Parts: sequence; structure tokens; C-alpha cells
Amino acid sequence: MWFIRVNMTDRTAKVEEAPAAYKHLAGRALTSTVVAEEVPPQAHALGPNNKLVFSTGFTTGTSAPTSSRLSIGGKSPLTGGIKEANAGTPWARDLAVMRIRAVIIEGQPAEQDKWWCISISMKDGKPAVEFYDATEYAGAGKSLYDVYPAMQAKLPEGANLGGIGVAGELGYPNSGIVFNDMHGRPSRYAGRGGLGAVLGSKRVKFISILSTGAPGVEIVDKALFEEGRKKMIEGLRSHAITKPKGGLNSYGTAVLINILNEAGGLPTRNFSSGRFEGAPRIAGEAIFESNKTRMGKEVYNHACSPGCIIQCSNTVYAKDGSEITSCVEYESDWSLGANCGIDDLDAIAHMNTLCNAYGLDTIEAGVTIGVAMQAGVIPFGDKEGAINLLHEMGKGTPLGRILGAGAAVTAKVYGVVRAPVVKGQAMPAYEPRAVKGIGITYATSTMGADHTAGYTICPEILGVMGKQDPLSPEGKAALSRAFQATTAFIDSSGHCLFIAFAILDIPSAYQGMIDEANGVLGTHWVAEDVIKYGSEVLRKERAFNEAAGIGKEADRVPEFMKTEPLPPHNQVFDVPDSALDSVYGDL
Amino acid sequence: MWFIRVNMTDRTAKVEEAPAAYKHLAGRALTSTVVAEEVPPQAHALGPNNKLVFSTGFTTGTSAPTSSRLSIGGKSPLTGGIKEANAGTPWARDLAVMRIRAVIIEGQPAEQDKWWCISISMKDGKPAVEFYDATEYAGAGKSLYDVYPAMQAKLPEGANLGGIGVAGELGYPNSGIVFNDMHGRPSRYAGRGGLGAVLGSKRVKFISILSTGAPGVEIVDKALFEEGRKKMIEGLRSHAITKPKGGLNSYGTAVLINILNEAGGLPTRNFSSGRFEGAPRIAGEAIFESNKTRMGKEVYNHACSPGCIIQCSNTVYAKDGSEITSCVEYESDWSLGANCGIDDLDAIAHMNTLCNAYGLDTIEAGVTIGVAMQAGVIPFGDKEGAINLLHEMGKGTPLGRILGAGAAVTAKVYGVVRAPVVKGQAMPAYEPRAVKGIGITYATSTMGADHTAGYTICPEILGVMGKQDPLSPEGKAALSRAFQATTAFIDSSGHCLFIAFAILDIPSAYQGMIDEANGVLGTHWVAEDVIKYGSEVLRKERAFNEAAGIGKEADRVPEFMKTEPLPPHNQVFDVPDSALDSVYGDL
Repeated sequence: MWFIRVNMTDRTAKVEEAPAAYKHLAGRALTSTVVAEEVPPQAHALGPNNKLVFSTGFTTGTSAPTSSRLSIGGKSPLTGGIKEANAGTPWARDLAVMRIRAVIIEGQPAEQDKWWCISISMKDGKPAVEFYDATEYAGAGKSLYDVYPAMQAKLPEGANLGGIGVAGELGYPNSGIVFNDMHGRPSRYAGRGGLGAVLGSKRVKFISILSTGAPGVEIVDKALFEEGRKKMIEGLRSHAITKPKGGLNSYGTAVLINILNEAGGLPTRNFSSGRFEGAPRIAGEAIFESNKTRMGKEVYNHACSPGCIIQCSNTVYAKDGSEITSCVEYESDWSLGANCGIDDLDAIAHMNTLCNAYGLDTIEAGVTIGVAMQAGVIPFGDKEGAINLLHEMGKGTPLGRILGAGAAVTAKVYGVVRAPVVKGQAMPAYEPRAVKGIGITYATSTMGADHTAGYTICPEILGVMGKQDPLSPEGKAALSRAFQATTAFIDSSGHCLFIAFAILDIPSAYQGMIDEANGVLGTHWVAEDVIKYGSEVLRKERAFNEAAGIGKEADRVPEFMKTEPLPPHNQVFDVPDSALDSVYGDL
Repeated sequence: MWFIRVNMTDRTAKVEEAPAAYKHLAGRALTSTVVAEEVPPQAHALGPNNKLVFSTGFTTGTSAPTSSRLSIGGKSPLTGGIKEANAGTPWARDLAVMRIRAVIIEGQPAEQDKWWCISISMKDGKPAVEFYDATEYAGAGKSLYDVYPAMQAKLPEGANLGGIGVAGELGYPNSGIVFNDMHGRPSRYAGRGGLGAVLGSKRVKFISILSTGAPGVEIVDKALFEEGRKKMIEGLRSHAITKPKGGLNSYGTAVLINILNEAGGLPTRNFSSGRFEGAPRIAGEAIFESNKTRMGKEVYNHACSPGCIIQCSNTVYAKDGSEITSCVEYESDWSLGANCGIDDLDAIAHMNTLCNAYGLDTIEAGVTIGVAMQAGVIPFGDKEGAINLLHEMGKGTPLGRILGAGAAVTAKVYGVVRAPVVKGQAMPAYEPRAVKGIGITYATSTMGADHTAGYTICPEILGVMGKQDPLSPEGKAALSRAFQATTAFIDSSGHCLFIAFAILDIPSAYQGMIDEANGVLGTHWVAEDVIKYGSEVLRKERAFNEAAGIGKEADRVPEFMKTEPLPPHNQVFDVPDSALDSVYGDL
């Protein structure tokens, strides 16, 4: 396995053997380890001492289903803490089959006049790195939908492309790193925490990868791996949420809109209610019906990355049958919709495209617009106004820069008390006052408010792993902790988090995940090792944060959620601090 | 002694006996104690659960010299921690002679449509509170130089006035609370940490006070007090810095410009050098000479508040003999001048007036403009551009709001790595790399970067208390700690910090400070009690900060000061973290 170290101070690259000590580290476990070991916790996130680490999971690049996730780590300019964001993309598969365990981007050029494309391909049986001038593709106002294909046209056929939009160029704390999907769209985002700005601070606009001539992933025990992968496939194909023409394949992740709305946990108008009267008009079912009407047939969703059998990515079509966007995730649908009081699906799809065009995280963008609406910059429900705010971000005007700095900064700039953030990161699409366990995850995650860090929605809302009362705080700290540790393992396996629905309900699928890992790595892990492995990842992340000044007192939801009852259940967030502290207390 | 609790939720006020347990607490000791005991550390600074506490020192209102300081405490919207800011003003004297130990402003109205003036006066031998509608005096773009006299005209003759400018109304993290000086100018600021926005969040525009009929301060042991006050006067009148026509009385605090420049510790162009070629043109001596030329005579400085015998407040006169501003402190002269690469005294004086007009802290404003210059918003040295940026803040445009949020937020919004802040608060006029002790104070103070919290400049630069090498970190942690504790006592005594020059060099003056306190309070404190008392204040402040999520990892200067050598000495900030941690380690 290879480690590629790219030094942007002098534009050099070293291709080295991956350190033996890291043998079993991949994906998030590896990115977080390298960041924890090599980035000074007090380093400025946009300074030369921050690093950006790319790594795929153990099983990425194999025939394991739904395993083409790429993990990216670094110090976050949004939270000031450690950050791992991941995305599903063919780019991940390429990295894995080239046996590149990590790409580490370091330093930054003294001259800030040019932008670069880092190009990785095979040369003489080994990965090699070149640098191309990408200056012409950068600049305020430019859309990735324009410059992405222009850059791609200059690269060899078959290359996959990652990069940043204007948001990353301008150093916005809200800026993601984008990768193409299976159809070349610049739409698969490692979106959260501003890692796009970190790449931008190193003057990297694009990273292309071409795996022609790659040897493929080495599998130590092929039979065991094969056994595991079959169990996993069986699980995914039989679970109601993940099976073909099941919930996700039919309605996408936006299937959750109606479900959360019903549960009173769909944050509406900057987290002032848990129920949105316009929910049915923006729900996954509405997208499906609209597409059916407009396309004259039922349109099921597609895969974002190679080997995915869940296939949850939707496309939203316009009346004339043209594509407005692909895809609108639940989180984006909610943040740009319900959270802004907007119930117009086409407008939401358009906003989604603008986020992709400018390189913005949709969650942070929608919550920020919600805060701006709370401040009176534009009224709730004003879709033209919201679209205009996204263009302001793309242009880099003073107003756009405020919004590009994210929800916490926007609230500070406008004196808004009701800022739904933890550790400076915007809360996603589940109301902590209506779903207590996810609130604990938001509060305590090393990542800031992040639903993917410990998705207790499974038992609290979806009945996966049994059903637990979402309004009760009882036992939820332990639940969140178990989810956070398991997630850290899944994020290291290369699998999409959506395998969780199947593996938590179907024991053989869970065993399949472990068999796959043991098959690839030659390890002998059992179920407890999943938690052990994940906990070790969390420990490293937590230690980094503490050294960066983010301790347990930062593991809190904002004050207004503890004092302001949320309709319709009229609940406050009543999880005691001691329960929050117990999550990482003796990890 | 009275406690006045004003509840802005329902506009009511209670006048109560001051709690017996607080008998010996006054000034900063009292404001920090009330904040620590009554404000939840996780409360939003602009929410209804923050409080604003006003208290004068033990000796305020007596004939003790230079003792009319008012201390204001609350949770800071700038730092997120506890905040004490103080100002010298006749308003303080009035509060003290009315035997009001504290005014505590709580709650906030549900309706945000009106602004209020709280009016405090004597009624039936007791303080009483009324509320006036002050809505007409508020509004973006309005200058305090216009609305202040308009409000004053409606109040009884002899009333003194405190309040906020547009900055506080708009909720800027950079917003001070202003009080009139001896000549009625709205120019004496409790400037740092955004307490203006806290007052604004409670919809209070002004607080007037009228002491007619007040009983005066009770003094337990008059003879002892008299003895102490004489020692203090003697000390202040004989020390070179504080004596009549001495350094401060002749050149104002701006006498430090040439001294710090000579020492290589005058931060220039956003802390990129310790020496400014334009220093002689903006120094206190230059102000004195310019005034002499323009007024045809030597103009010595005046007192900001009753009973001050140091009299360090200057007035800057225009060519036509009219007043441009009063007064330009060293910090303002530096921040709006050297730190922005501006060497035009009249322009600096004009900018100082604009800060006063809009209710901005001059230090935060100048450092923020320096960061904006670093970002390329305007070039260094652009005085017209800098004046325009202050007007943007006054108008509340998006750009103005960014800048009004202070240097740390401006840096975050523009992706500027070189942000000279600690705990979100801008560094004052002394370079930590050239004066290591003050860097330790900046790093460790409970207030964020604050020179007044532990002014080690005394021995490091001025030779007060002997001379110590400013470039050496040796012994400076203990030095800073001793200064921080002593300062907390001085800030509780009601004296201006400038008594420090005399009391640290002249033992009888130090004893005078203690005698005054014992005389007023009937205590039997000795020298060690000063440190003990001050340390207890610091402990409370520190505990509040820790509970608010600001622990020892926040006691650091920004990374660039540890890696970027500062001309002319080419030093980095080389104080080890262990030394920083020792300051509060076992306090």
C-alpha cells in the first residue's frame, strides 16, 4: 500500500510505502490518526501546518457492495476541531484499486497567484503525481458545472475528478470537497466542516485520478471475503429500507421528510417548530410523483458510486424533462426547504444545484439562510430571496462572505440568539428536542452537530434495532455512544453508512461486514472489535479536540433548545449535562 | 448600600439592601461575583439570561484621588467568557455617593420595537428608577454626538448619562458602553468585549443618573482613610509618569507610541512588524506639538472624571482651533494608526471620533480594520478607506456588520490566518513577540487579549518596579500572575489602573491604597490581602470561563506569532505552554 505526500509549498510529491504501524487503519481511522499525529491542534486550519488526508476504507475497490466511500480528514476551519467528511464516488474506487492508502496534502505555496490540479495516475506500476495549472478554472462567480467539464476535457479519458468550488477558493468555513458521481456530475460532496477551504488554502482547485493499470485491492482471505460480501448483499437486498424499489431506492433519503414531520422532529423555520405544513409537497414521495408525471414513467433512483446496490440518488426533473439537479438528499431538501419555510420542490432543487455549483455544504447553507431569515435579512418562505443569497455566496460579496462563514458566524454577525449549532457547525435535519438521542450525538460528536456521527434515528424513528421513544432521554447517552463507535468503524470500512439499516436488523449482515474486513485484511476480528476499533478512533479525535480547546463544556446544545419548548410536542432538550458527559467520559 | 435590580422583561425595578455576604465586594470583585453566581455560563450573551452589572469601587465617590472608575460585568458576546470593562466618568461618582453598590440589568422585553432610558435618581432618601422612551435616539447611522445631547436635554440638570451607540443597538460583538466625561462628551468607554450589545439586547439605549440629594459614601474609619489618601496623592504627585506636567499629563497615554516603537514592540500593519516608520508623527509628543502650534500655547491634559489628579486625557485640535476629538488614548492612536499603517494624526483623531459616535471599542475597531487590510479589502495606509469602513459599521451594512463583529470574526469571514486575537478578542498595542510578559497576560487573562488585565509593561518597558528584559520569557509567568491579581484588586478599589505606576515604585503609596480601603470598609487588610483578594476574583472569573468552555487550551497566542519572527528583533513568542498554564495552574 502507498502513502502519497504532496507538498504544496514546493509542489513536490513523495510516493512511499504506507507505514507498517498503520496496517489496519483505513478510511476515517486513518485520516483521523494522521491528523491527530501530524497536525498541531492549535494550528490555524487555513495555515501551512494543517494537512488534508484522503483515504478509502478496507473494502473500497473490492466487490463488497456499497463500499466506494472516500474519507477526508483535516482540522476544520468551521469547528476548529478535527474533521472527517466522506463521500461516495468513483474517485474513491480508483484510489483503492491503485493501492493508495492515503493521499496527504501538506504545506501551502508562498505565492497565492495560481491554482493547481494535482493529477494521480499509474506510472511503471506505481502511482505517480503531476501538477497542472488550473488557474483558469477558478474565480468568484464561476460554477463547477462549467469548470468541471472544462477541466475534465483536458484530462485523459476515464479520469475522475475531485475539487473545490468558489466557496473553497474564498476560504469559506462552509465549503466542501466535491467529486463526480457515476455520470460525471460534480455532485458528491465531502461537504461538512469546511475542508474545501483547507484544500483552497493550499491552492489546490482539483485532484484528478486515473486508475488505468492499477493492480486492484489485495485480499488476504478471498473465500472469507466472498462469504462476507454475500451476507452483506443478502442483508441489503432484503431490508425494507435498502432493498430494490424499497424506501431509499424509490424515494431517496427524502423519504424521511414525511416520517420526521409525522414525528414532530422536522426542524422548521430555523428550528422554531418540529412540523412543517409544506412537508408533503417537498417529501421524497412528492419527488417520485413529480418525476413520474413529468417523465411519463416511474423513475427509480441510481447509484452515486460503483458497486452500490442501495441506489438512493434521485434526479429531479423539470417540467420539460430536463434535469434540475441530482441528487436532492433529505438533508438538503430539509435545510433549503422546511428550515427556510420553503415548500417549492423546483426551487429547492435549483438551490441544491447552486450549492453544488459554488461548492457549499447544503446543510450549513440552508441552516445559515434560516438564521439570516431569523435576522430579517429576507423573510421565511422567500425562495427568490434564498436563491439570491446563494448567488451572493458564489460572488463573494460581503453578505455572501458572512453566509459562507456558516450559521454560527452569521448568527454572531447579526446578533441572532437562536443559532442551531454545536461547536460552530449547523445542526442537520432532526430536532434534538423531539429526538433526544440524536441531540446527544449532535452535542457530543467530535465533529460538531452531525447526524451521521451516531445515527440514533435508526431506533428512535425508524424502528431499526427495535423502537425507542424519541422523546425520552432515558438510555440515550449509551445508545449514542454505541452508534458513534460503530459508525467510526463503518466509516473506516469504506461502506456507506446506509448499510447500518441492514446490519443492525440482520445479524448475518453484521457478520458479513466483519467477514469482509477480516477477508481483506487477514484480521480475526469479532463483533466486539467493531466497537473497540471505533472507540479508538473516537478517542484520538477527542484528544485532538481537547488539545485544540474543545472540551466537554462544548458538548452542549444551544441554550434556546433548553428553554424554548418545541411544537408540536412542546418539549425542551432535557438531557442532563451528566448524561452528555458520560458519552465520552470513560471511552 | 443598595442593590438595584432592573428587569427589562417587564420594565420593573427593585431597590434592595445589598447582600451582607457581599460587604467587601465592590467594582470588579462585585461585578464578576454577581455574573459568576447568577449568569449560567452557557447562556447566550445576547439572550434573556445574561445580566449586566454596574458597580463602583470601595473608594469611588470619596476624596481618594483618581478613583471614579465604574466597573461593568456580564457575559461577553465577543469572547463567550466573563467580561469586566471599566471606565472613568462622573457617572461612577454619582452611583457611589448614592450608596448604590450595584445596578443589575436583567431580562429582555419580548417586543423589540422600542428603546429605553433607565433613569436613576434619589427619591425620599432612597434611589428610585424610572423608564423613559428613548426610541427616537436609536437607529443605524445616528451619531452619539447628536443623540447624546438631545437625550441629556430632556433630563434634569446635572444628570450624567451612559448608553450605547449604533454598535450596541445592532448587537455587534464590538460595542462598548459609553459615559460622558467631565465636559459632557460621550467619550469615556467601558469599551472591550461587546457589553454594549448586551445592554442593547435588553433594549436599553441610555442609563441616566442624578445624585442630587445623595448621602455620600460612608467611611468607617475617616482618619485612616485620610492618611491613606494623602499617601496616595503624594505618590501620584511625585512619580515621573503621573505627576503634573509629567509624562501622562503632558503627552497623554500616547506618550507610549515612541517608547514602544523604540522597543520594537509597536505592532504595525496587522502585527507584521514591531516598528512603525510613522510613529513620531502620531506620538503623544506630536499631539502636544500640534496643539501648541494650532492653539498658540502649551495645552496640558485634563481629567476624565472627578478627583483625578493624573489628568491624562488629551484633546486633539484642528488647524482652525476646533476640537477634532477628545481623547485619543495610546491604544486608539496605535490601533487606528500604526496598526493600519496610517500616520496622519488628524485622520486618526477623526476615526477616534467615529468610534465614539457609533459606540465602538477603538482597539477592536483598529485591529479589525488591520485584518481587513490584510485581507485586501483596502490597502494598508488607506486613511480614507479606513474612515469609510467605520461608517460602514455605523450604517450596519453587511460589510459593516462583518467588521462590527470584531477582528476574529472578520478574519474567519475573509479566511485571514494572521488574526491577532486571544479568546476572540483583539490584541492591544503591545507586541507579544517583543514584550513576552504582556503576551502571557494576553494569553491567560480571563478577559481575552487585554493589556489592562496584567500590565507587565511597567517593568518590561517603563522600568517601574525595576527593569526586566522584555524579550526574555524568564520569570514572566509569575510576573503576569502578580500583575493580574493586583489589577483585580485595583479594579475593585475604584482607582484608575494608572495608580500602578506610583504604588509599584513608592511603597508608601501602595500602603496608601490599602489604608484607603481599610478606612472606607473598616477592614484590616495588609499587603498580602491585595493579592489574596485579587486572586479570588480571578478564580471566580476563571471558573466561569471553564464552565463556558474556555479552558487552558484557550490560553494561547495565535499560531503565527509562534512561527513568524517579528522585526526588528526577529523574535517569535517563545513562552512554553507550561509557563502559560502555570499562571492559573494553582491559583
